[in-house]
Amino acid sequence: MRNFKIILEYDGAAYCGWQRQDNGISIQEVLEKTIGLITGEEITVIGSGRTDAGVHALNQVANFQSGTRLSAEILYRGINGLLPPDIAVKELEEAALEFHAQHDARGKIYIYRIYNSRLRRPVGRNYFWQINYPLDLARMEKASQYLIGRHDFSCFCATGSRVKDRVRTITDIAFKKNETGMLEITVAAEGFLRYMVRNIVGTLVEVGGGKYPPEEVVKIIDSGDRNCAGVTAPAHGLFLKEVKYCR
Amino acid sequence: MRNFKIILEYDGAAYCGWQRQDNGISIQEVLEKTIGLITGEEITVIGSGRTDAGVHALNQVANFQSGTRLSAEILYRGINGLLPPDIAVKELEEAALEFHAQHDARGKIYIYRIYNSRLRRPVGRNYFWQINYPLDLARMEKASQYLIGRHDFSCFCATGSRVKDRVRTITDIAFKKNETGMLEITVAAEGFLRYMVRNIVGTLVEVGGGKYPPEEVVKIIDSGDRNCAGVTAPAHGLFLKEVKYCR
Repeated sequence: MRNFKIILEYDGAAYCGWQRQDNGISIQEVLEKTIGLITGEEITVIGSGRTDAGVHALNQVANFQSGTRLSAEILYRGINGLLPPDIAVKELEEAALEFHAQHDARGKIYIYRIYNSRLRRPVGRNYFWQINYPLDLARMEKASQYLIGRHDFSCFCATGSRVKDRVRTITDIAFKKNETGMLEITVAAEGFLRYMVRNIVGTLVEVGGGKYPPEEVVKIIDSGDRNCAGVTAPAHGLFLKEVKYCR
Repeated sequence: MRNFKIILEYDGAAYCGWQRQDNGISIQEVLEKTIGLITGEEITVIGSGRTDAGVHALNQVANFQSGTRLSAEILYRGINGLLPPDIAVKELEEAALEFHAQHDARGKIYIYRIYNSRLRRPVGRNYFWQINYPLDLARMEKASQYLIGRHDFSCFCATGSRVKDRVRTITDIAFKKNETGMLEITVAAEGFLRYMVRNIVGTLVEVGGGKYPPEEVVKIIDSGDRNCAGVTAPAHGLFLKEVKYCR
């Protein structure tokens, strides 16, 4: 057996998310079928983690094992030639047999894009969240400082999640507005709970819009109650930017 | 009667183009129906010019006459509230009764976006043309210099066009590569023939890819023959950026 590491970009709009599901087409399923067509095997693709329905990825990492004799270059070109236009393998390389895209992941960086204007922007509208009331960026930045560090983030975890240990470490939250007025919020953590970035962004937007002060975020975290935090920001503004590994 | 000038942004993907047609939904038709819903009249919207099926606009200009007593602000909000997400009115103001978006237009600027990489880029793929063989930008820039000025551009005019006078003046062609590697070709002219920008871009790409030298463009113009020029670049990479008026 050989083990291959792949780095992927995808537009999540058409998919039910990363993970195989009975009720829709997932990125994982498309990859497994496509790679299987090339190698002639039943392939299991292991992602660094799930992305939810509609969420995009710029550099999702995954691995798969195969007995193929094809070179990495031939696999790379063959797989890309068969993938649909909304999924691309950016890199493919042979990895150590022990490499496991999920277990070995040490951190992830997500980007959330917000366009804050009364004016709608039709071009590219599937890649940002439009907020049409004014957001106070300084308040949002202040609120974000309370999130950095090691906390029980139950308040930002999707309702119904079965995960018990909800302690996570956020290492950085950064704000950047580009020349076209697009606000990019970058959130880096060792790991994330389901909907965590989107729930954090929804809460920061409520702070920015004046619904409650930045300090309220401390109470929200302490409450451990999803109902105390803000709305879930829509999926189409979220991008998995990077997955970090030790080696 | 009153006359209103509007500036529009739209994502052209879902439309058969600007102009009303029997065989598809046009931007013009959607605008006329939407504005008519607000004013209770049959509205005719006059665009600065047509954009073809699939072409986007960042600042298309149009005007319409109406006997409405509604203020520009109310019209602006009402129309935007009813338009679909892929069309937005960015500005609406009352204009002189004589203002005519097509006849008064003195120049237009288009942008064509190319992503030159072997790597496919799924995110935003409906807003650029991917070229997977290397393009020599210096050659393309050199070729573009031969296009600037007043010429008979028959060679770049859509086959079957009924326009007889095909002399146009290109005032500028500029190349810019942004930090994500996207190449933007800006073409400014007093007026354009049908498919002219896309045929110019298709020809520049053939020069950039090495099919013929930059000087060949002179022969192509002189030939006056559409068959001598390059392919028509796809619609989804093209954006109407600006329309210029004297006043």
